[in-house]
Amino acid sequence: MTKKSTNTLWHHATITRADREALHKHKSVIIWFTGLSGSGKSTLAHAVEEYLHKVGISTIVLDGDNVRHGLCGDLDFSDSDRIENIRRVSELAKLMIEAGVITLAAFISPFKADRDDARKRVPHGDFLEIYCQCPIETCEQRDVKGLYKKARAGKIPFFTGIGSPYETPGMPELVVNTHELTLEESVKKVLNLLMQRGVIKDIVC
Amino acid sequence: MTKKSTNTLWHHATITRADREALHKHKSVIIWFTGLSGSGKSTLAHAVEEYLHKVGISTIVLDGDNVRHGLCGDLDFSDSDRIENIRRVSELAKLMIEAGVITLAAFISPFKADRDDARKRVPHGDFLEIYCQCPIETCEQRDVKGLYKKARAGKIPFFTGIGSPYETPGMPELVVNTHELTLEESVKKVLNLLMQRGVIKDIVC
Repeated sequence: MTKKSTNTLWHHATITRADREALHKHKSVIIWFTGLSGSGKSTLAHAVEEYLHKVGISTIVLDGDNVRHGLCGDLDFSDSDRIENIRRVSELAKLMIEAGVITLAAFISPFKADRDDARKRVPHGDFLEIYCQCPIETCEQRDVKGLYKKARAGKIPFFTGIGSPYETPGMPELVVNTHELTLEESVKKVLNLLMQRGVIKDIVC
Repeated sequence: MTKKSTNTLWHHATITRADREALHKHKSVIIWFTGLSGSGKSTLAHAVEEYLHKVGISTIVLDGDNVRHGLCGDLDFSDSDRIENIRRVSELAKLMIEAGVITLAAFISPFKADRDDARKRVPHGDFLEIYCQCPIETCEQRDVKGLYKKARAGKIPFFTGIGSPYETPGMPELVVNTHELTLEESVKKVLNLLMQRGVIKDIVC
C-alpha cells in the first residue's frame, strides 16, 4: 500500500452525543443544584444519583468534593475565581452530557449571571436548574462543616450569605424547600421533573 | 415529622466508580494519545472510539476540538499554558473514568513531566499512553491544518517540533507508527492493548 492510499484511509470517524445517548438508552441532561452552603444540594444530588443508577441510568455528581481539589484546585473563593470555577464546571458538565451521562452539579453558584452562562452553553432544555431553598438561619444552625461559625468569626472573608451575596434564582425549573421536605420527598420532586422532561419514563419506588 | 428527624434522614448516598463500571459492563481507562501535530492522534482516537461504541462501550474523545475553545479557552500555547492545559485535561479525564466512561484523550502533550503527572492522577494501570510516532517531515508534508506552513513563516511562535520541543515518551504502553500502518492496523494495535489489559474481552471485526 502506498503512502498516499494510507493517508486516504485515515478518515475521521465521529460518534455523536445522540449515539452515546442511544447506547445508554436515555437522554443526558445537566441537573444544576444551587443554594446556600448547608442547603442540602450535594446530599440531594447524590440521593437522586442513587435512584437513577439503580434504574440503569449513567450518572455523575460534580461537587466541591471532586472538583475543588482537582480541576479547580488553583482557584480561591474571590468573586473572580468563583466565576472561573463555575465556568469550568459548566464546560465540564457540557462534556459529560456529550458523553451521554446525566450530570448532577451541586455548587453554591451564588451569581445569577454565572448560572445563566452555564445554561447558555448547552442546547435549550438540557439544563435544569434546581434551587435548594433553605433559610440561612437553618443552614447556619445545621452548619455541618462548621463553615458558618468560621465565617462569622471573620475567618472566611467571602462566605456566601455572610461576606458575599447569594442571588436567588428567578426562574429555576424547580424549587425544593429542603428545610420542609424529607430527602425522599425532595428526590421525588426532582424525579417528577425528569419525568415531565422525558428524561426518565416513570418512577419505580 | 420534626425538623431533627428530617435532618437525620438526609444521609449521604454514594455511587462509586466501580458501581458505574458495573452498570456499563466494562472497566474505564484513560487512553492517552501523544505525538506531533499531524501524527494522527485525533483520527486514531476517533476510529478506536467508533469500534468501542459499536460493541456497546461508553466512550468520549477529548481533543483540541472540544477542549481548546471550552474548558481551556482562556489558555494559549506558551509553555506555562500548555502545562495548565494538560493539567485540566487530565483532571477532566479522571472525572470521566469516575463516570465509567473510556476516555480517549488526543493531545500533542509534548512534555514528559505533564504526561507523567496525568498518569499519576489515576490508579496504576488506568492510564495507557500511546505514542503516535511519525517523522516530523511526514507530518509537515501532510500539514492537514496548514499549521507547519504558518509555523515556518514565524506566525505560530511555540509550535511543537519547530519553535517548541516534543519530548519522546520513554516507556509508553504502545507505540503506533502511524506513517507505516493503515488506520485499520493502528486501531487493531490499540484494541490488542485493551484486550491485554482486560478492558475488552475480544476483538470482533
